This record gives sequence, C-alpha cells and structure tokens, in this order.
Amino acid sequence: MVRVMSENTFGKIFRVTTFGESHNVAVGVVIDGVPAGMPLSEADIQRELDRRRPGQSILTTTRRERDKVEILSGVFQGKTLGTPICMLVRNVDVDSAPYETIKTKPRPGHADLAYLLKFGHVDYRGGGRAAARETVGRVAAGAIAKKLLAAHDVEILGHTVEAAGIAVERELSPDEIRKNVEKNPMRCADLKVAERMKEAVLEAAADGDSTGGMVEVRALGVPAGIGDPVFDKLDAEIAHALMSIGSVKAVQIGAGCEFARMRGSEANDPIVLQGGKLTTETNKAGGILGGISTGMAIVAKITVKPTPSITKPQRTVDLVQMEETEIKLKGRFDPNICPRIVPVAEAMLALVIVDHMLRSGKINPDRLK
Amino acid sequence: MVRVMSENTFGKIFRVTTFGESHNVAVGVVIDGVPAGMPLSEADIQRELDRRRPGQSILTTTRRERDKVEILSGVFQGKTLGTPICMLVRNVDVDSAPYETIKTKPRPGHADLAYLLKFGHVDYRGGGRAAARETVGRVAAGAIAKKLLAAHDVEILGHTVEAAGIAVERELSPDEIRKNVEKNPMRCADLKVAERMKEAVLEAAADGDSTGGMVEVRALGVPAGIGDPVFDKLDAEIAHALMSIGSVKAVQIGAGCEFARMRGSEANDPIVLQGGKLTTETNKAGGILGGISTGMAIVAKITVKPTPSITKPQRTVDLVQMEETEIKLKGRFDPNICPRIVPVAEAMLALVIVDHMLRSGKINPDRLK
Amino acid sequence: MVRVMSENTFGKIFRVTTFGESHNVAVGVVIDGVPAGMPLSEADIQRELDRRRPGQSILTTTRRERDKVEILSGVFQGKTLGTPICMLVRNVDVDSAPYETIKTKPRPGHADLAYLLKFGHVDYRGGGRAAARETVGRVAAGAIAKKLLAAHDVEILGHTVEAAGIAVERELSPDEIRKNVEKNPMRCADLKVAERMKEAVLEAAADGDSTGGMVEVRALGVPAGIGDPVFDKLDAEIAHALMSIGSVKAVQIGAGCEFARMRGSEANDPIVLQGGKLTTETNKAGGILGGISTGMAIVAKITVKPTPSITKPQRTVDLVQMEETEIKLKGRFDPNICPRIVPVAEAMLALVIVDHMLRSGKINPDRLK
Amino acid sequence: MVRVMSENTFGKIFRVTTFGESHNVAVGVVIDGVPAGMPLSEADIQRELDRRRPGQSILTTTRRERDKVEILSGVFQGKTLGTPICMLVRNVDVDSAPYETIKTKPRPGHADLAYLLKFGHVDYRGGGRAAARETVGRVAAGAIAKKLLAAHDVEILGHTVEAAGIAVERELSPDEIRKNVEKNPMRCADLKVAERMKEAVLEAAADGDSTGGMVEVRALGVPAGIGDPVFDKLDAEIAHALMSIGSVKAVQIGAGCEFARMRGSEANDPIVLQGGKLTTETNKAGGILGGISTGMAIVAKITVKPTPSITKPQRTVDLVQMEETEIKLKGRFDPNICPRIVPVAEAMLALVIVDHMLRSGKINPDRLK
Repeated sequence: MVRVMSENTFGKIFRVTTFGESHNVAVGVVIDGVPAGMPLSEADIQRELDRRRPGQSILTTTRRERDKVEILSGVFQGKTLGTPICMLVRNVDVDSAPYETIKTKPRPGHADLAYLLKFGHVDYRGGGRAAARETVGRVAAGAIAKKLLAAHDVEILGHTVEAAGIAVERELSPDEIRKNVEKNPMRCADLKVAERMKEAVLEAAADGDSTGGMVEVRALGVPAGIGDPVFDKLDAEIAHALMSIGSVKAVQIGAGCEFARMRGSEANDPIVLQGGKLTTETNKAGGILGGISTGMAIVAKITVKPTPSITKPQRTVDLVQMEETEIKLKGRFDPNICPRIVPVAEAMLALVIVDHMLRSGKINPDRLK
Repeated sequence: MVRVMSENTFGKIFRVTTFGESHNVAVGVVIDGVPAGMPLSEADIQRELDRRRPGQSILTTTRRERDKVEILSGVFQGKTLGTPICMLVRNVDVDSAPYETIKTKPRPGHADLAYLLKFGHVDYRGGGRAAARETVGRVAAGAIAKKLLAAHDVEILGHTVEAAGIAVERELSPDEIRKNVEKNPMRCADLKVAERMKEAVLEAAADGDSTGGMVEVRALGVPAGIGDPVFDKLDAEIAHALMSIGSVKAVQIGAGCEFARMRGSEANDPIVLQGGKLTTETNKAGGILGGISTGMAIVAKITVKPTPSITKPQRTVDLVQMEETEIKLKGRFDPNICPRIVPVAEAMLALVIVDHMLRSGKINPDRLK
Repeated sequence: MVRVMSENTFGKIFRVTTFGESHNVAVGVVIDGVPAGMPLSEADIQRELDRRRPGQSILTTTRRERDKVEILSGVFQGKTLGTPICMLVRNVDVDSAPYETIKTKPRPGHADLAYLLKFGHVDYRGGGRAAARETVGRVAAGAIAKKLLAAHDVEILGHTVEAAGIAVERELSPDEIRKNVEKNPMRCADLKVAERMKEAVLEAAADGDSTGGMVEVRALGVPAGIGDPVFDKLDAEIAHALMSIGSVKAVQIGAGCEFARMRGSEANDPIVLQGGKLTTETNKAGGILGGISTGMAIVAKITVKPTPSITKPQRTVDLVQMEETEIKLKGRFDPNICPRIVPVAEAMLALVIVDHMLRSGKINPDRLK
Repeated sequence: MVRVMSENTFGKIFRVTTFGESHNVAVGVVIDGVPAGMPLSEADIQRELDRRRPGQSILTTTRRERDKVEILSGVFQGKTLGTPICMLVRNVDVDSAPYETIKTKPRPGHADLAYLLKFGHVDYRGGGRAAARETVGRVAAGAIAKKLLAAHDVEILGHTVEAAGIAVERELSPDEIRKNVEKNPMRCADLKVAERMKEAVLEAAADGDSTGGMVEVRALGVPAGIGDPVFDKLDAEIAHALMSIGSVKAVQIGAGCEFARMRGSEANDPIVLQGGKLTTETNKAGGILGGISTGMAIVAKITVKPTPSITKPQRTVDLVQMEETEIKLKGRFDPNICPRIVPVAEAMLALVIVDHMLRSGKINPDRLK
C-alpha cells in the first residue's frame, strides 16, 4: 500500500507550500502567485515572524528560536517578480535530547502515534513536521498576504477572547483591538480580562497543566462579492484554513453556535440603506451569505484545545514492549497557546481572503506600488 | 474585472462536480475517480435521494420534488467503469411565480443579494444555484461514497442533536441511532427528545418563524493513518465539507468548543491497549490527531442556522427604487432544516473519508465486487 | 492495488469535464468557470457539433449520430449565470452488435487492450470512453470558448495540411482558410490539394486501409503576455491539449521539427517596429517565447495517425483461448480522420487560450454582452 | 488587470515546485508526495546535477556553476519522511554585468520581451527565471523520481539523436545508450555520429552561430495500464512535460510525425504472444495506446531549437528610444544545447512516469527500502 499525498500546499492562485521539520535543517515556504511589482523586504516578513516566536514572555516556551528569515527568490530590487518567493528560516539552537523517549512512547493528545501509523518513518525530534514550528512558513506567507490586503484597505485583526475559562463578555471595537492586543502576553484586547486570563493560565501551569481558549479573527474592508458558491464558499475555506492549524478543534462564523437557539426572525440580518449604500443592520452572518462576502466585517472564532504537552504524568503505551506505561514530559511548554495562535490565525484568514480576491479579480496591481 | 471561478468541484481523487439551478432544466453531478468494477444501480442512489427529498412530513416543505435519478455514464452491466459517472435529476413540478418579487427585493439571510453582487446575472427562481436543491448532486455522490465505504466496513451515521432549543443531553450509541433516526420527522435518535423538538419547531412555525439546531455526524470503522498533515488535515477538510452546506455556521470536531474550558490533563485521550491493540481510552479528539485518523470514531457536530425563509414580515431594500421596504414571503417553508441536513452532512462526511482513503491507498478494489 | 484517477477535466479556470461512453446512455460535458452574463444558446453549440459529426460525406463513417445538444444548467434567459454549464447529447441509433468480438479480441492500434489492463471492467461497445464520440463534449465546450474569444477578437482556425501523403506545400493566408475549409470534405484550405488528398484517401480505403495526415491550428489576435512560464508554458499546455486528442502522435509549435536543422541566426525572429508597435519580422516561434505569447499568431501542427479501424485482416490475440488469431473488422470506418479532427483541435486550442486569458485577467466581461 | 498565476508546480501526486532566478540568491525545488521510507542522500541528487552543469566541455558554456545541493527538509536519518523535500543550490560566481544591455534591448528568440510584457518588473540578470538554470530544480526532483523508478525496475534513458544537421540514422539498443552516452560531449550514443555532430556544432560556433537538434528519451520497464484516458493521457502529459523545457518546440511519441504518411495496416502494432505473455510485435505506438501504457518501451523525441544566444549581430528594438537597433551579445554561450537538455528531458519523463505510477497505485513502498 502506498503512503502518499502528504499535502502541504494551500490556496488556488496565491499558493503557499510550507516545508521543514522542527529540528531538521530549516523550515520555510514557497509562495507562487504573488503579483509582480509589489515592494517587499525581509523586514516585512520578520515583523510578523517575531509575533509568533516563542520566548516572548513567561507565558510562552523559553526556547529561543532565532527566526531570521531569508528571501531566496522572487524579489529583485525590492519588488516582487511574479515568480515563486521562497523564504527560509534555519533551525538553530535546538535540543533534541528530550525527544528520545517519545520515539517509543507516544504522547497523548499529540500527533506522535498518528504520524507513526501513517508514515512509518518519522522525525520525532521536537514534533517534527507536526510541531508549531511549521507555522513559521504560514506566518511568513501571511505577511505577504497582509501587505497585499493592506494596499486594498483590507485589515486583519486577531485577539484572544477566552483562555483558561476566562472570557471577554463584550463586543470589542476594532480600535480597541488595534490598541491593546500587543500590550499584554495573552493578546487579549480587553486589558482587564487579559490580566485575569494570565492568572488563570499561570495557576494551571503551576499545577503542571495547560489550558485552552478561543481566538477571534476579523477581516475588515473585504469587498462584497468574493467567495465561490457551493463547495468553495468563503466560510468553508475559512473553516478549512483555521481548522488546519494544530490544536484548533472548532470554527464558528458570525454568531456561529448561537444560531442553534435562534429563530429566523432573529438570525436574519435586515437589509438596510446607510448613506445610500446597501448594508445590513446587524452582522450575525459574520459577513458571509451563501458563501459570498456581503461587505460587512468577516468574523470567525476558533476553539484552541489545551497544549497537549504537560508535565503531569500521563498514560500511554510503550510501543517496544507493547505494554501500558506512564510518561512525564520534561521541559517548559506553552501553558496556553492562544496568544501564539493569534498571528497564525490572522495569517490563515489573510491567505483565504487574498486568494479569493485574486480569484474574483479584485486585486489591482496599480495599488501595490 | 473578471467575475470567475465559481467552484463546484469537491475532492482530490473522488472528485464531485455538481451542476444545476433549482428551477432550471435539471440538477445533477459528475463523479470522477470512482474505482472500476463496483456494482452500482440507480436504486442505490434513489434510496439516499429519497431521504433528502422535501415533503416527507409536516415538518418539511410540501413541494413534491420527484427526484428520479438517471445514471447517464460510467456504469455498464451494473458495474462502475472507472470513468466519470454523470447522474441527472430533472426539475419538474416547479412554480417560479412566487420568486418574481425577490428579483428586486433580496431576502434577508438569503444569498440573493450576495449572488447579485457577485454574478450580476442571476437565476432568482427558487433560489437558483444557492437553493437546497443543489444538494441533490451531493447526496447522489455521497450514496456512491457510502457504498464504497460500506465495502470497507466504514459506516456513516447522522442525527439531529438539537432543534428549536431542545437538545439531546446524553451520548447516543450507534445502535440507537441506526434504530431510531428514520422513525421520526426530526431525525433525532432519542425518540422522546424528538417529540419535544417537533413541538417546539411547530410552535415557532405557527408563529411564522423558523428555528435552528445541531446535527452530529460520525464515521465508524475509519482506519488509522488517513488524513494529510498540515493544510489538508482530515479535520480541516471535514470542516470545509460541512461548512460548505448552506445554513451551516459552525463545525466542531470531537469535544469541539468544550476544549476551550478544559485543561490538558482532561483533553488528552490516554493511549491504552485493548485486547492487545492500541487505542485511546476516551475520544475527546473525535478520532483525529494532527490531522490524521487515530482509528477511533470520527465525530463532528454542526450548527444549522434557522431557515432564512419565514412568513413574518422582514426589512429589506427595493433595489429598483433604492429605498427601504418590507417583504412578507408567501408559501410553505421548512420550519426547521436539521432533518433534511442530516443526509447531506452524511454525504459530505462520506466524500471526505472516501477521498482520504483513496489518497492513502486504503481502498481495496477486491472488496468492491 | 487501487485503479483510480481517470482524469476527465481540463483547464484551471475554464474547467471542462467530459463524461459518457460511446454506446451508453449519453455523452456530455460540464464547464465550470464561464463568466456570467454572456449570451449563449443551444444553436451556438449545435453549429460546432455539426462540424464534428460523422456521416457528412463519403469520407466519414455513415453512422448517423443525431448530436442534438441540450443545455441543462448554467444558462438563464439566454445568458450564462457563471455557474456550471452542463450539456448533454443522448446516444441514439447505435448498433453495438459488431463490437461483441472485440470483447475478447483486442484491435491492434486501438485502446481496447490498454483499457482492459487498466480498468478490468470495460464498456467495449463502440470503443466506450475511448471512442471519438468523447469529443462531443470537447467540441461543445470549445464552442463556448470560441464565443468568448471572438468577443475579444481572437479567432481560431484549423485545416488539414496533409493527408494520405498529399501535403499543402505553401503557407495559406487566414482568408483562404476561412473561405475554403468547409468547402471540401478534407477540410483542406487549398482546394486543388484537397481534391488530390481525397483521391489518395479513397484509394487506400478501397484497399480496406486507412491513412494519416497533419492538421494545423492557429489562434489569431491573442494578446501578448499570456502563458505561464516554467511548467505551464502556453506551448506546453497546447501540446498537452492537442496530444490528448485520440490519434494525435506529434505536436509542433511554429517551425517545430524544422528547428533541428536551423542555426540560431535563422531561428530567432528579429524584433522590429511596425507602425510604432513592437512585433517580430518572422514568426518561426509560432507566437510563443519562453512559454508566453508574443502577440503574433499562435501556430501548432499535429500529426494524426491513420484510423486504427481497417477492414484488412490483422493479427491479434484471443484473450479467452490465449492464442494468436486474426480479426477482420466489419462496418464502415473513417478512411481518414483529419477532417473530423479539425474542429476538435480547434476546440482544444480555444480551451487553452481562453483559460490562459482568464488566468491573466485578459477577459473583459463588458465585451461579452 | 491582475498579472497572476505564474505556474511553477508540476505533477499531481509527486508534486514538484521550482523556484529561483538565475542570478538571484538561489535556485531550488520543493517536492511533495514522495513516499516515506526511501533512502536518499545529497549524493543521489548531486550526481544528476553534475550531468546538467555547464562547463563540462568545450561544447557548453564556461560559467563554473558550483551546483552544490543542500537538502533542507523531508529527509531524516538518510530516509525520506513523506513530508516535502526542499533542496537548494545557491547562485555563486555570477557575473551580471553583461546583462545590463538587455534591460532595454530584448534579445530575439529569448523570453526577454515576453516576460517584460507579462510581468512588468523582471530580473533581467542571466535570463532570470527563464534561464536554463531553472532546470536545476527539475533535475534534482528527477533524481528522486529516477530512484523511485529504479526500485521498480523502470529505467530512463536519454540521448542526442540529431545536432547541427547530423542525425543518428539507426535504432540504438538500450545497452549502446547506457554504454556510450556519457562518453562524448554531445551525449550521442553512436560515437561515430557524435564525432561528426561535434565538428558541425563547432563549425557553426566558429561562425558566431548556434545549432539545433533532437533528443530522444525512453522509459523502459513501465508497467502496462498507467496513464489516464481522456485529458491526462500519458502521452499528453509527456508532451506537456517535455514542451515545458525551454527551447523545445516539437514532441513526437513513437513513430510521431512519420504516422502522417503511414497506412493503418503499417501503423497498427500487431498484438502477439511472446512466451505466453501479451505484447506487440512492433512498437510504433511508442508504448502508449489510448493514453495508457502498453508495457512496451515508452519513446518520445523532442526538437530543440538552436540556442538563441549567438554572437552574430541581431536586429532588435531599443525600448527606451523605441527605435530599431542591433545587438551583439558578448560572452561564451552553449553552441548546441542538446547534450545539456538530455538530463533535463530524462528528469521530466521520470516525473511523469513516477506520478502516473503513484496515481495508479503501482509504487510499492516495500521496494523502496
């Protein structure tokens, strides 16, 4: 039987292929389909990579990933060529020793066993290809997507709305998010809630445990009429993109799960005129109807499961002896991964939006200069 | 600017392309990538189509769609040829008159306005391509997928777990679902809850309103090791598939949204031996880790928004006069769409599973005969 | 082992999927990606289908295919919707009796044996899926592509340039082709040569034999700058498209094979100004450099092998007895297939050009009305 | 208008994406879909890269490309992981000075002008993305494909069969090709003809001119039944792959162009038994019927146009002044590119065969160890 088709490409026009294992030589990405003539520098990418980097606070792991990006192709004289852009980040300062045990004792909640069953031969060091480090390529690609979007007045905003049982209970304005999100280690835009989140996260961490949460991402300024009906509905591809992030286990669009208990008369956003322009009074639909953007803000919310890496003892099976056993992981792990998911979720949303804008002919190269 | 790329194909090996507008000549589907030599008849398809047909009870619309399927290609002497299978259902007995008004007064919560903004020229009759009728092709394709899966001891089960605020509060066994789901118009496998759901749905309907709910789908017997890591994780493609169904606004895998409030020590399913075989003690992961199947049941849950068609008056805009107005839809509409979503969600899950089994080389033609 | 991925879709934006076996219920095509708002009627399609139909003259088979096309979807009020267009032609008036023998005695030069080895279960009647009849769907799709192109002043011209050893020795002007090609059964635009071709073809036919030839196709008016460098060069995709037609065994672009004996100084087309506009003095490149259109006429030439169906006795193997034997096919076959290949080759070239124009944003919906 | 979709990926399961401009930072390739568990080292790749490297003899350019490959991902402990393999070759020792002139004076026969019209912003140095150097990635990917094929007893052979008007007139045996092809700078397997080729090439070179030729590639041992009928016929994809190589202007399969003058009774390969096994007596079909492999050797022949870079003066247009002018290129260019095309054509054929074997489930991972 053939084990094939590990699938590492995302997008139809703006096509992103990531590569690399966590503790192997390098991680990186090739992006095909970027229009020619857009100014682009390594600094544009580095800024976003620095946001996803661990070791930024006591809430994230202390491995010092020096994610120094190098652009290898597709850019000349500071502008994109319309040819594939390959970007590389070397893996340095890695310590693979702690991972020797998981070769034979798969970690519960991790992909260790599933990879082994699928591939047979696995790079177990640091989680290999299943590690969070794979998202370096996503975030680098997302940085380009965001730049393209910004030139068309589309903005992507992400923030943590729940962590360790502490939730933001009110609707936050875009301004509040822009202003506050980078001011606290939880990337929660309500600074008071952020403080309580942090405490709850640290409490669990002190107990050798991790915590889950929720992240919201929005795309503002998306023109009406993008998205392909039927199978490639804008919301379907957003769900695909966000669910493809490790640890994400639920995706909601607009009012999401709350729709289950609504009536039609509450759920339908009334169509109104505002300054002579068509819009909807409310935005329960999250900016998408029939898979097509309505011109309102696109809003998605994801549930992030607790980091599976915990220091509490856990039950597993020793694959050599084929007997049940216990493992106790050593090292420092992210006690809550939501703040690091924020830039990744933003990147994935940006990739979907930019790809659909390209598909619909809504990217104007004249705006890129 | 070019308005292109309406995307009507799903799958990579088992590729499903649907076509047709609700009140146009016909709806149908072409499936490419079905292995040769599998017995297949129109009866295999008709059985599933009859499950999605409206007019089955007082809870669904009374339009009598005579969904008589015709297989046009890809089958010879009762067996598949490995060539594309085209299946057709003619649209008969349609009454397009009530849709004249929506040409200029888009219905809130519907795709009317979004389609108009995207395509410019739209078949407004009966919802056109955005109508539930498009799912005829999905269900027909799903019938073939299910047959392929059944030959490999994989079973797909769907049922309504919440409607109009009434929820099933306990875990149902596969046997209960198999036995009860077709016994009540809500397709709820807990017959007592089903009765209360029905009452709540009818109460809202009497008020000219519709209700939302939740549907769960499971895939039993899926072998471990299918699913592609990174962008085409099994759960990412399931989310894509399910979110591509009209009215679905949230997708959860396994414990889904509940993960937000769990700790790692609760969220991780312990790996154990059962009769000498590797398994997990619990299945909070919903059968998928790192995007790859673990061998446990695959479980997904979707939120279905209330049918946007209601008879209560609603605010919209008259596009000719460009002024705000009210519409009051006439006719009989599904007061709750969950029971009709069940076979569609089953079909979409079947399509994802069969495609991934083909990608992983887990379909054995010898079992198809 | 899984026998999968019979691949029946062509194109990236303008995506064409054909289906159907020669003597099964119907043949047809689904086209996704046609822009919305273009006038389209069954008559537009029928015209091209009538050109590929057999039984037009003594030079083609006498089976009276009544290729009456029906548009099932994607068109409303005489204009395209931007949704998939499904078109159907029922198979009527078929006589499958003569094909009983080939079930066990594969015809040399035909796909009979290869299909059997690949699929196991085969519709042997009338060549099944490998029959020329599959091109009905291609030509129907090509008719739409041609209409799109015509609205952008791009014209596709095809003609027979060699048959049965008789070749057109001079360069023909577009006007000559337009005027003469439909005036003779060989679709040769030089009427004198056409007469000699016809005689040579009939002479071989009288001998129970078939003959090969060459067909040239041109695309006039293609804008400069379409085509994707590297793997999807315009000429690479043209080669793919044309070689995918049954019986085609060679594809040349521009001067083609003659380049082998040229020097660089002869092969390079000098770049000159003509009325202030950039052009090349000659067009040996056939309108394509580096995989990208230059603005000159795109010119391709294909070699068509003699129809494998001949009435002369031929050696084959009886698959039941597994012993060598002889077959003598009965019936009337095309003694030369070039004239019927002309509309198919035109269709395939049109599909490539329109797809690349869509990819490059060179289709303007305003011109479609 | 959007300039998008430069397309740099080849293959459906074994997917190859090349990146890099000739004088930019690096060239390279990412290959997705390589089965896990196959031994692979940089030496496996380097061997093939060394064959395509220029500066190997007086017949190729003297630029000393130090094509030192580095594997960045997808390989661990000397074996493939089933994850994407990224391979990199840095561009060193480049002299971009001579290319300053072509910024404004496009070279006839080159892609300079077409790229400018398509992309607007172009890396003109050393031909940028259109340079032969792009094939580094193809050859590196081909090396992996060849290794996979060799494990299944499939062998790829390439050799120059015509150059500068001197042609090999007889059929060469595989053994002759294996033995002789690397023994002479023309990569012609008939050593006497090779000598004459070389003289003819040098004669033209002395005149400041270049010459064209033909290269044949064969795949031996390909199992019957691979290839997808209709649009992705094996020969259609081979034509696509080979025509995507810069300078290739014609592709023939089997008897190719000669079929034009054959009769059916000559063209059809009789089906016979050989040692109880089905085969054909001759192989005019070049191992492919109906787009599917027959089990015979697959044979393709390509026409290579003369290298457009010549030192003779040529007519072009000065794009700044917009007036006709002359250019005289300086430097040393390949006087005949056939010998360097040989490994590239082998690589492309290997990519098509391995992809189709994977699609048909004919790759057995147990044979890879």
